[in-house]
Amino acid sequence: MIQFQNLNKNQPYTILKDKYNEALNAGQSVIEAISISSYNKQLNEVDSRFVNLKFIINDEFIFFSNYNSPKSKAFDSHSQICALIYWPAINMQIRMKANIKRTSEEFNQEYFRNRSKEKNALAISSKQSEKIVSYEEITKNYEITQKKVDLSTCPNYWGGFSFTPYYFEFWEGHELRVNKRLVYKKINKKWEKSIIQP
Amino acid sequence: MIQFQNLNKNQPYTILKDKYNEALNAGQSVIEAISISSYNKQLNEVDSRFVNLKFIINDEFIFFSNYNSPKSKAFDSHSQICALIYWPAINMQIRMKANIKRTSEEFNQEYFRNRSKEKNALAISSKQSEKIVSYEEITKNYEITQKKVDLSTCPNYWGGFSFTPYYFEFWEGHELRVNKRLVYKKINKKWEKSIIQP
Repeated sequence: MIQFQNLNKNQPYTILKDKYNEALNAGQSVIEAISISSYNKQLNEVDSRFVNLKFIINDEFIFFSNYNSPKSKAFDSHSQICALIYWPAINMQIRMKANIKRTSEEFNQEYFRNRSKEKNALAISSKQSEKIVSYEEITKNYEITQKKVDLSTCPNYWGGFSFTPYYFEFWEGHELRVNKRLVYKKINKKWEKSIIQP
Repeated sequence: MIQFQNLNKNQPYTILKDKYNEALNAGQSVIEAISISSYNKQLNEVDSRFVNLKFIINDEFIFFSNYNSPKSKAFDSHSQICALIYWPAINMQIRMKANIKRTSEEFNQEYFRNRSKEKNALAISSKQSEKIVSYEEITKNYEITQKKVDLSTCPNYWGGFSFTPYYFEFWEGHELRVNKRLVYKKINKKWEKSIIQP
């Protein structure tokens, strides 16, 4: 589930919310899954991964991650990203382009305090994406962390990322590929709407 | 559905096939959906979209598109891409990095000849991603094309894209986020396997 708070009243956001409700009613599984694509300038490499979208607060999309992870390094080197949602239950793809930044420490601490201790133990114990010898090593490290560490203080290497799209595309699939594509582009703080070819 | 032909016998490919069969048996919908992320050097912009993965032939992944589309222009400017599959039915994410190129004209012609005429009419009639005045304009154009044009010859602005990954990650979700992540990297033509942190 995605938490909507004080949602922005402009059309791309209201359409997003309507489609979210439709997908939810159609029984869409893992509705909060969103792919985040990034470009690491130093590595000259595009990368992409699914994350759980936690909040849409006004016009900001927020998810959480390790700040030392490869994606975080990519965002540091090139802040522009693409975010992609696909809800097969309603045959809808939503594509967004945005610039990404970290959320404030206050926001991270408050969120962390209210999360489950089990999830926090993993956030604290994992050196995300670093190599390890075995999966057992991870579960052992995780169990030790659960017993020994303060699980309600957010470590400085963990927290939220926030992005506010400057581009939305709502893509609705059609059996014969005559897909409907509705685009919103933010130009001089206003949303410009257009229809593009399938 | 994805068509597997003469599949490569190395481990990342055999694991992929096993997971595909598991997802198929678990009733995964739209199993051929794959997100392709690209970077357009001229625009300095990351973009991402779902396509239908049609074939895996030996070690090559193949999908089809318009060669004048924005994604095609991005591939021309930066050939490295990231491909992402997510099958919630088995809680599995597969992430690949690769370089992408066009398939041969012979391959495109043969594939086109055997496709349905309805789909071909759309491939011929659509100027992918260009702005239009109304959705009706598309359907009208599509209907005219269906009646007036040779629907079995592939136009030169349409065809396949092929990529052969140099990186695979199999990510298996776990309820407490202690996810399993298995990585294969191709180094000097050999696959190097490692486990990375959740």
